[in-house]
Amino acid sequence: MKYLKHSAFLIASAIVFVSCMDKNGKEKTGQSVETEKSSKKHWPNGAQLVISVSMQFETGGQPEGAESPFSGTPLPKGQPDLAAESWYRYGANEGIYRMLDLWKKYDIKVTSHVVGSAAERYPEIAKAIAAGGHEIAAHGMIWDNQWNKNYADELKFVKDGVETVEKITGQKAVGYNCNWLRRSPNTLKVLQEAGFLYHIDDLSHDEPFITKVNGKNFVVMPYTLRNNDIVNIEGKNWSPDQFLAQLKFEFDRLYEEGASKRRMMSISFHDRIGGTPAMVHAMEEFIKYTQEKQGVVFMRKDDIAKMVVNDPATPIDTSEEKYNN
Amino acid sequence: MKYLKHSAFLIASAIVFVSCMDKNGKEKTGQSVETEKSSKKHWPNGAQLVISVSMQFETGGQPEGAESPFSGTPLPKGQPDLAAESWYRYGANEGIYRMLDLWKKYDIKVTSHVVGSAAERYPEIAKAIAAGGHEIAAHGMIWDNQWNKNYADELKFVKDGVETVEKITGQKAVGYNCNWLRRSPNTLKVLQEAGFLYHIDDLSHDEPFITKVNGKNFVVMPYTLRNNDIVNIEGKNWSPDQFLAQLKFEFDRLYEEGASKRRMMSISFHDRIGGTPAMVHAMEEFIKYTQEKQGVVFMRKDDIAKMVVNDPATPIDTSEEKYNN
Amino acid sequence: MKYLKHSAFLIASAIVFVSCMDKNGKEKTGQSVETEKSSKKHWPNGAQLVISVSMQFETGGQPEGAESPFSGTPLPKGQPDLAAESWYRYGANEGIYRMLDLWKKYDIKVTSHVVGSAAERYPEIAKAIAAGGHEIAAHGMIWDNQWNKNYADELKFVKDGVETVEKITGQKAVGYNCNWLRRSPNTLKVLQEAGFLYHIDDLSHDEPFITKVNGKNFVVMPYTLRNNDIVNIEGKNWSPDQFLAQLKFEFDRLYEEGASKRRMMSISFHDRIGGTPAMVHAMEEFIKYTQEKQGVVFMRKDDIAKMVVNDPATPIDTSEEKYNN
Amino acid sequence: MKYLKHSAFLIASAIVFVSCMDKNGKEKTGQSVETEKSSKKHWPNGAQLVISVSMQFETGGQPEGAESPFSGTPLPKGQPDLAAESWYRYGANEGIYRMLDLWKKYDIKVTSHVVGSAAERYPEIAKAIAAGGHEIAAHGMIWDNQWNKNYADELKFVKDGVETVEKITGQKAVGYNCNWLRRSPNTLKVLQEAGFLYHIDDLSHDEPFITKVNGKNFVVMPYTLRNNDIVNIEGKNWSPDQFLAQLKFEFDRLYEEGASKRRMMSISFHDRIGGTPAMVHAMEEFIKYTQEKQGVVFMRKDDIAKMVVNDPATPIDTSEEKYNN
Repeated sequence: MKYLKHSAFLIASAIVFVSCMDKNGKEKTGQSVETEKSSKKHWPNGAQLVISVSMQFETGGQPEGAESPFSGTPLPKGQPDLAAESWYRYGANEGIYRMLDLWKKYDIKVTSHVVGSAAERYPEIAKAIAAGGHEIAAHGMIWDNQWNKNYADELKFVKDGVETVEKITGQKAVGYNCNWLRRSPNTLKVLQEAGFLYHIDDLSHDEPFITKVNGKNFVVMPYTLRNNDIVNIEGKNWSPDQFLAQLKFEFDRLYEEGASKRRMMSISFHDRIGGTPAMVHAMEEFIKYTQEKQGVVFMRKDDIAKMVVNDPATPIDTSEEKYNN
Repeated sequence: MKYLKHSAFLIASAIVFVSCMDKNGKEKTGQSVETEKSSKKHWPNGAQLVISVSMQFETGGQPEGAESPFSGTPLPKGQPDLAAESWYRYGANEGIYRMLDLWKKYDIKVTSHVVGSAAERYPEIAKAIAAGGHEIAAHGMIWDNQWNKNYADELKFVKDGVETVEKITGQKAVGYNCNWLRRSPNTLKVLQEAGFLYHIDDLSHDEPFITKVNGKNFVVMPYTLRNNDIVNIEGKNWSPDQFLAQLKFEFDRLYEEGASKRRMMSISFHDRIGGTPAMVHAMEEFIKYTQEKQGVVFMRKDDIAKMVVNDPATPIDTSEEKYNN
Repeated sequence: MKYLKHSAFLIASAIVFVSCMDKNGKEKTGQSVETEKSSKKHWPNGAQLVISVSMQFETGGQPEGAESPFSGTPLPKGQPDLAAESWYRYGANEGIYRMLDLWKKYDIKVTSHVVGSAAERYPEIAKAIAAGGHEIAAHGMIWDNQWNKNYADELKFVKDGVETVEKITGQKAVGYNCNWLRRSPNTLKVLQEAGFLYHIDDLSHDEPFITKVNGKNFVVMPYTLRNNDIVNIEGKNWSPDQFLAQLKFEFDRLYEEGASKRRMMSISFHDRIGGTPAMVHAMEEFIKYTQEKQGVVFMRKDDIAKMVVNDPATPIDTSEEKYNN
Repeated sequence: MKYLKHSAFLIASAIVFVSCMDKNGKEKTGQSVETEKSSKKHWPNGAQLVISVSMQFETGGQPEGAESPFSGTPLPKGQPDLAAESWYRYGANEGIYRMLDLWKKYDIKVTSHVVGSAAERYPEIAKAIAAGGHEIAAHGMIWDNQWNKNYADELKFVKDGVETVEKITGQKAVGYNCNWLRRSPNTLKVLQEAGFLYHIDDLSHDEPFITKVNGKNFVVMPYTLRNNDIVNIEGKNWSPDQFLAQLKFEFDRLYEEGASKRRMMSISFHDRIGGTPAMVHAMEEFIKYTQEKQGVVFMRKDDIAKMVVNDPATPIDTSEEKYNN
């Protein structure tokens, strides 16, 4: 019920948003009206393209030897890797705050996947994220494999993370992101029992969909490794200008497709990687680029999930039903 | 006989195409006429450059632990890698359909290398490809090494794939692509016995050529790792804008060479890689780029093979004759 | 005391610099005055952004089998790797001199981290660096792990390097850079005992900060792997034009942030890598790019450290206090 | 003696070249005259920058399992890797001829390092290179390590390669390139005994220099891994547009330096890599780019070596004298 109400509110706000865009839009009025009309069919809020940013807050929760620019030649166990630790602290000192400044400047609300132990280490950061109006989503209690836990252990692991972060931020997560996306066959049942509405560890669609878990609707938000800083920037595949080019290419296609079907674009930034000056600059350039088009809406994933979970236009995907009954 | 007839038809249609280009061409009329004249000598259909896209449809047929963004740190045998599986499903849910939309928009017919088990898993996709007027080519029954099979096993492996896909699509493949291009010394003889006209697992030319198999003409279509999404995008060598730059550089040179000899450009897109928004955008930009020139023709590989197999201007290459007699 | 005096001098000179920029500035006068005013609060010398280049001079001091384009397939111990040795000599023959020419052309003073054994091998280069007005900073006696030395050995290692280079250049280092940034838990205490003012092996901030060592102020200058030639160019992640794009993106963001807080940009060039023609060209293009903005100051790290060590606006970071008491 | 005469001839031809450039040059006449004057001091032929291309011809001589896009997952010994073999044949079928066309179009003479066994396999290609006016230089009899051979074996290995290629092309090599640049400590003495004038396996300078071998002048031509297709393109570091950007950045700096000292730029293209359409396009764009400047001369390395071997302005480098006495 409340989902539907919320969704109605979003439709209203989206209309305001779209109208506001009209005034500064570069497209001719005639075209924009047409676009609005056709795209209204695909998203409940009338957007032509919904973009959602994931901002992972993990720093401070990393285990010894965690992946860093130094982990390729690890130090002996017990020897502190001070350079690597300082690299991680960057996410707390600079990265998250720089991104928060950017989201604020453009009035964008993002989804922040918060590791429990990171919030414990830097509670002021977790609070700052929540205070900025961003979604606090769950990302496990600590950095640990989740795919190999039994049901009870996994449930405890998930709940501990949620409760730890809730105590600090006052927000109870309804969205989940596993360590390196690697779920166990039980994860969706665990998440449903723990009161979650959606998860993001699925790369199979460019729009949210419903999967049935114990017969009930569970939302799967599209995620991607393509627009992902940890894979492409920290993985040393691309320079920030290439990342920007990727975002623009991806946007151009999805926006065009958005005229005839529901499309969503997912972007992922991690505190110590996406929060560097060059990457935040790339993201700002991208945001400006999207503002040249009408009907582009940046949203939190919980708001998207609530908007689509009971929408009959949301596709249902049964690919994993053998695990979820 | 029918090859020659088909070829004549293509010449006719190519002339229409070239004329149509004339109207919107940016080159001066004088130049374009001259170009047309000189290039007519090199391809039977008068094209200055023939481009052929391979669209691999493999998703759903992958074995456990198949190469994916996650396979670098494999899970224990038997543990489902749900993130990797969702990555593969992307090719079926989004990738192939997005590419089909692109080909339709520009009226391009491509060659689709279909793995038998992929077609069994997603028959509706195999049918959609065939219904779009694209060539259904063979790519093995399942994802498996072919270079280490004995003659009988290889023949069965090839035939099973062809028959499986033919039952679903109604098209019998005449072109072959081995798993990772790795043929056995018997492969061409096997293919000839199974009724094939050509294969593509050869990187040695920028134009189709004839190789003699048991004394008869067998066509080898040029393939390349340069314009190949799996090598350069999934292999994390390039971003999509670099892929586009590669295509343009490659095209510029081959088009120019096409004025004085027969030249063909080969591009390869895989369902879950080339079918992403950014890559389809890159491909669309490339298609637009080629439209600025006259005499560029996108063709299915079976149509190319039929056009050249009995053309005396097609070169004969005897490099592998010791295997094929 | 002398630090404060020095700092006052820098404020004076910075004002001259900023005024000089005014004449050729592209921004409107009204804007530039405003910028000057707001940025004066953040750096003692009134800069909006301080940039510092590290120029590592290591060549000639490398051990057998040191990392080079050839070290991936090492020769047997004792077999001279003549191609690799010639690659290192490039830094001495061309690299450092080319960079010195560039710094001179733009009147930029940099910090040179000099390995003791490199200065012994090429004393004329160490002298040329010092004669150019650049800072001679320490980088160890030889190329060797520092994180695994005990206190006494580490102190000797550091002092030997300083004394060796001081004998040649007449400059006593006050700044330190460890081999691959990897400090021991004792390093800051060792450096303090050896009379150092700052170190750079920390990636956690985009501005200098104070850490307490035995209760006294020790400056930590921000360093980065992002704007680092050895990581991104020799590590084969980027081409020089990508490196330039990274510098510009990084600059754009830090410069903008510099209007409201203290920001510093750190760049690192190694003799045989950053000293190649393409990289020096990239750096020159970057320098020109920064000249389009007002209030950008290139400084030696010792000058920066002296300017901020007793400035109450310099942040204090206690993250490593457990090691430094 | 004949070296000096040859050098005089080159001076004459270079003056013609520079004058010819004058007519189409974009720089103002005043400037160009000044440039000509100052640069005449640094190269005997008056060039401001000498560029030399190495065109490696190796295809057909590769051993089983030689580095290819497939060698990362090698087939069992004895199993033919047909895809890899076809990749190599590309260099013979397309690569060398495409490059020869480019050199001809711009009247550029290059140095071709020819492996003996490659010339045996494709004598017509070796002859075509020689017939194009290009230098036939030596690159070993077969693809084999040279650094681990004793004096007698190395001498035989070198001589066999030279004689094999001389019989086919009529040209006796005076320049040498070792397999992967890896010389033995004896190599220069071996080369001198075998009548060589220069080698290129040294990365230490951006201009040719003299090293004394048994007290006599031996020329070392600068080589580089930066402008090298096998390292950066086949090594999957860069796309062809990045390679072009590297060449332009490198050129811009060296050309500018050429006004005040002797500078040389070295570029390396291998048959099957640099000979692809996109790379030849990149090279053509680069050649056009260099034509916008005056005093740029493309030369064979033997001509350069002869021009500088007895020029007192050529630097002498004694770094390796312990091996060469």
